[in-house]
Amino acid sequence: MYIGIDLGGTNIAAGLVDDSGKILYTKSTPTLATRGYKAVIDDINKLVKDIIEEAKVEKNEIKAIGIGIPGLADKDGNVIFCVNLGWENIPLRKMMEEELNIPVFIDNDATVAGLAEYEFGSMKGCKNGILLTLGTGIGGGIILNGEVYSGVHGVGSEIGHMIIGENFYNCNCGKNGCFETFASSTAIIKYTQKLISEGNTDTIILQKVEGDLEKINAKVIFDSAKEGDRVAKMAVDRLVKYLVIGIFNIVNFMDPEVIALGGGISNAGEYLLNLVKEEFEKFKYYKTLPAANIVLAQFKNDAGILGAAMLGKHGVR
Amino acid sequence: MYIGIDLGGTNIAAGLVDDSGKILYTKSTPTLATRGYKAVIDDINKLVKDIIEEAKVEKNEIKAIGIGIPGLADKDGNVIFCVNLGWENIPLRKMMEEELNIPVFIDNDATVAGLAEYEFGSMKGCKNGILLTLGTGIGGGIILNGEVYSGVHGVGSEIGHMIIGENFYNCNCGKNGCFETFASSTAIIKYTQKLISEGNTDTIILQKVEGDLEKINAKVIFDSAKEGDRVAKMAVDRLVKYLVIGIFNIVNFMDPEVIALGGGISNAGEYLLNLVKEEFEKFKYYKTLPAANIVLAQFKNDAGILGAAMLGKHGVR
Repeated sequence: MYIGIDLGGTNIAAGLVDDSGKILYTKSTPTLATRGYKAVIDDINKLVKDIIEEAKVEKNEIKAIGIGIPGLADKDGNVIFCVNLGWENIPLRKMMEEELNIPVFIDNDATVAGLAEYEFGSMKGCKNGILLTLGTGIGGGIILNGEVYSGVHGVGSEIGHMIIGENFYNCNCGKNGCFETFASSTAIIKYTQKLISEGNTDTIILQKVEGDLEKINAKVIFDSAKEGDRVAKMAVDRLVKYLVIGIFNIVNFMDPEVIALGGGISNAGEYLLNLVKEEFEKFKYYKTLPAANIVLAQFKNDAGILGAAMLGKHGVR
Repeated sequence: MYIGIDLGGTNIAAGLVDDSGKILYTKSTPTLATRGYKAVIDDINKLVKDIIEEAKVEKNEIKAIGIGIPGLADKDGNVIFCVNLGWENIPLRKMMEEELNIPVFIDNDATVAGLAEYEFGSMKGCKNGILLTLGTGIGGGIILNGEVYSGVHGVGSEIGHMIIGENFYNCNCGKNGCFETFASSTAIIKYTQKLISEGNTDTIILQKVEGDLEKINAKVIFDSAKEGDRVAKMAVDRLVKYLVIGIFNIVNFMDPEVIALGGGISNAGEYLLNLVKEEFEKFKYYKTLPAANIVLAQFKNDAGILGAAMLGKHGVR
């Protein structure tokens, strides 16, 4: 058995997971990152101990602990950056292993979610696959030959910051044209707000949010587009256009077997998937040759715990 | 020993290569592709036989033959496309093995050049590396864990068609914004011609080409930039800007150990390399972390034969 931990900006979710990917027991606690890293890591260690006690397992049955973090870790288990948590160079593995005496493995949360999809979900059994988490930003989880891939220096799979065009606003990273400024929920919200502000007010989006542009979210936009709303469709079409450019770049480069779409945007489901597949067929470079199968990710909230547990499993085997 | 064959649009170059990468004997013949694929493949087979005879080796000393093609082959050794040669679905391996009775391995020419750099040149000993061949187009040769990587469907490493912005002219592939329309020799020539046509005539480029815009080539532009010419420097700066965007996208995605710059543009040497490294340092996402080492490719014309021979070596081992 393994314990998987999904360390987020708001909550720390932990779960006991068996070899077959069954989540046997879960427990969570608020992150409260402003307390500083020591208090947060104390809470992570306490969650692990609580789970072992409450789920009535022996500690030596836990082969490993995996953690998905919203940032970057090095190969020695140090957290290099976690911007959301204000962490920089934190010896997370060391602080956990000293307290718990169980092997700890750490990787980026999108990478970990990709591993969950590879082990039990949309990328199961595939040779190479990539999960795109289309949320407030865009994360990437790359699986190569059955293992997570984070590059030689651990700075790879930052797919959200691939530059694919020129945009009307800059990315948080300071650059212009990042993939996530075109195809994340933030991107589609900003573009819809822009359209409406520029006078495209003949839209049911405005009714749904009672005239408050700040209340616009990706679900409202997709729902409106499904109802045939012109402005919402413009925003969705633009997102699809650039999402396909990003997918096209990935295919031209890595040619994976599967590209899975996850994160909040993927809640638009088959509606989104069909638009993406249609556009991709028009767009792909070798028209007559097979290319990546584009699918919806299977796991929603559980991907973090499940993938982290599998990170532990891959680490110790 | 191996025989490496560099199948180009103009010439077919073949060489006898030992395990240590020493080219012992070479011979070449014009491609004359308009004769049709059978005549070309007859000539390839004849080159192999001639080399064996003229270099006075026994046929059974040749462990394998590798071929780099300006196109795409499948895993069974069929050439799927070779646009320059007018080839489509040609059973190249079969037609050679039946005639020669030596194992034949086929891959894209940029991939093969990447293998030469990995075995003996600028990417020697690295875990993961990418060669960018900056010529009339841009090719990519990806080495992952010591083997060439062409993706699951064999359509990967088409780095030249990664979309990175919006450009004033469309790519041959029909799309707008491909990497190779910004950072190839074709790209810098077209942009320089545009600058001059738009009235930037205060440039020594015009003297060097005697006023004939059609005579402008990448060397003239880089030479003029090195001499401080304003227009040439604008063109070089633009190429460097977009070359670094392409490199940045590769680093964000695959995080390789080395990125080697080859092809005609790389003849600008240290001058280009320094500009690229300077711009990349400003551009990279994780400022304080190490990322790919950017270097000049080591081999010029020999990369094709050498890499193809090594493709044979990797194939049979």
